[in-house]
Amino acid sequence: MTPDALEAALRRIGAERYHNLHPFHRALHDGRLDRAQVQAWALNRYCYQSHIPMKDATLLARLPTAALRRAWRTRLVDHDGETQGEGGVARWLVLTDALGLDRSYVESLSGVLPATRFAVEAYVHFVRDRSILEAIASSLTELFAPTIIGERVSGMLRHYDFVDRQALAYFTPRLTQAPQDAAFALAYVCAHATSVAEQDAVLEALRFKCDVLWSMLDALEHAYVVPGHIPPGAFRP
Amino acid sequence: MTPDALEAALRRIGAERYHNLHPFHRALHDGRLDRAQVQAWALNRYCYQSHIPMKDATLLARLPTAALRRAWRTRLVDHDGETQGEGGVARWLVLTDALGLDRSYVESLSGVLPATRFAVEAYVHFVRDRSILEAIASSLTELFAPTIIGERVSGMLRHYDFVDRQALAYFTPRLTQAPQDAAFALAYVCAHATSVAEQDAVLEALRFKCDVLWSMLDALEHAYVVPGHIPPGAFRP
Repeated sequence: MTPDALEAALRRIGAERYHNLHPFHRALHDGRLDRAQVQAWALNRYCYQSHIPMKDATLLARLPTAALRRAWRTRLVDHDGETQGEGGVARWLVLTDALGLDRSYVESLSGVLPATRFAVEAYVHFVRDRSILEAIASSLTELFAPTIIGERVSGMLRHYDFVDRQALAYFTPRLTQAPQDAAFALAYVCAHATSVAEQDAVLEALRFKCDVLWSMLDALEHAYVVPGHIPPGAFRP
Repeated sequence: MTPDALEAALRRIGAERYHNLHPFHRALHDGRLDRAQVQAWALNRYCYQSHIPMKDATLLARLPTAALRRAWRTRLVDHDGETQGEGGVARWLVLTDALGLDRSYVESLSGVLPATRFAVEAYVHFVRDRSILEAIASSLTELFAPTIIGERVSGMLRHYDFVDRQALAYFTPRLTQAPQDAAFALAYVCAHATSVAEQDAVLEALRFKCDVLWSMLDALEHAYVVPGHIPPGAFRP
């Protein structure tokens, strides 16, 4: 495939499998969840968010040049910030605070669904164990993030009186960070995935990442949407 | 805790969290699933079964004495057999054959739910990355296996005319293998978990393993029991 064809194939995967298509996302966006369900979503999403810098550091540790490492290091800055209280991880806690969750409980991860943990760990391990090409390719869901961010922020502000713009502060910087990240990763995979096997691996890496995100929403839906089946030990609203 | 108290604490975890308590297991045992749902269960369970020897080899590779390695090697023999067609993995395929699933499709794992994969991988990685004590402790669900095997075999034979004793051949050797395995692992953890921290780690390892098994049934229930939500790419009956 040419680079353009590879990009088109990646975008097709997003059109079919990105989690904006998931019923739970639709319910979140359309105001059909209650506050407890939004709490459960935010609590579990914190497990994912708090592991993103670990995932990126795992990948960064494998990058063989200063140029690649500097480019990937921007993600650590985006999520960990320069100081306490800054960065994406800290901004997610602003949301969980606004939803009335105890911050130390959120940070302990003790209420997180096992299925969330396993999906998040699968992502970190993928980036540790697979080829660098596949690891970078797995970040390409960022190609689709701006769409979902727009829907989510507008939908949640419209429908839930228990969230305001400040609560959703996580998302605003992501509108510019995600496209920058995605552009770098897309350029990298187009330059380095030149054989059929490499291109198949890139597409499979994106499907894997879509599976990670989709399975987390499946787990939330199963546990917290009627009829909820909350597994032993997990958050009970 | 004394060894007896540690064993009692382990058994309490099983009494609260082992997957014989899961609604999907109850439905499987009570004949409330249809053949397609039993197919989905067997297909996904093959992902777990086929990774058990990999999990055990991962652990074996870390054991520092010949005596420990010989003891753990029995598990490889149990699941991989001595020759083609023998062993637990091969016997599981007898079940999937009997249920009408294409063998190469089953072995490809291509229809397996992502959540199943992530749970199975979490188990293999746990055994790779955690302490040897925790890795061995994570096998202790085998303390509870004989109960569920009895329920499952009798329940399935009673309720499903599409399975017979030969189809369920996987389970019979497990009735003696599981207790032997569990006795070894229990003796090991009782001998080596002498501090409070070590005993807490042992209990947490068993809770983790219960989470792995429970989350796999959650995923099956969500995808294949009414109203089913089958994620992109997974088995569609």
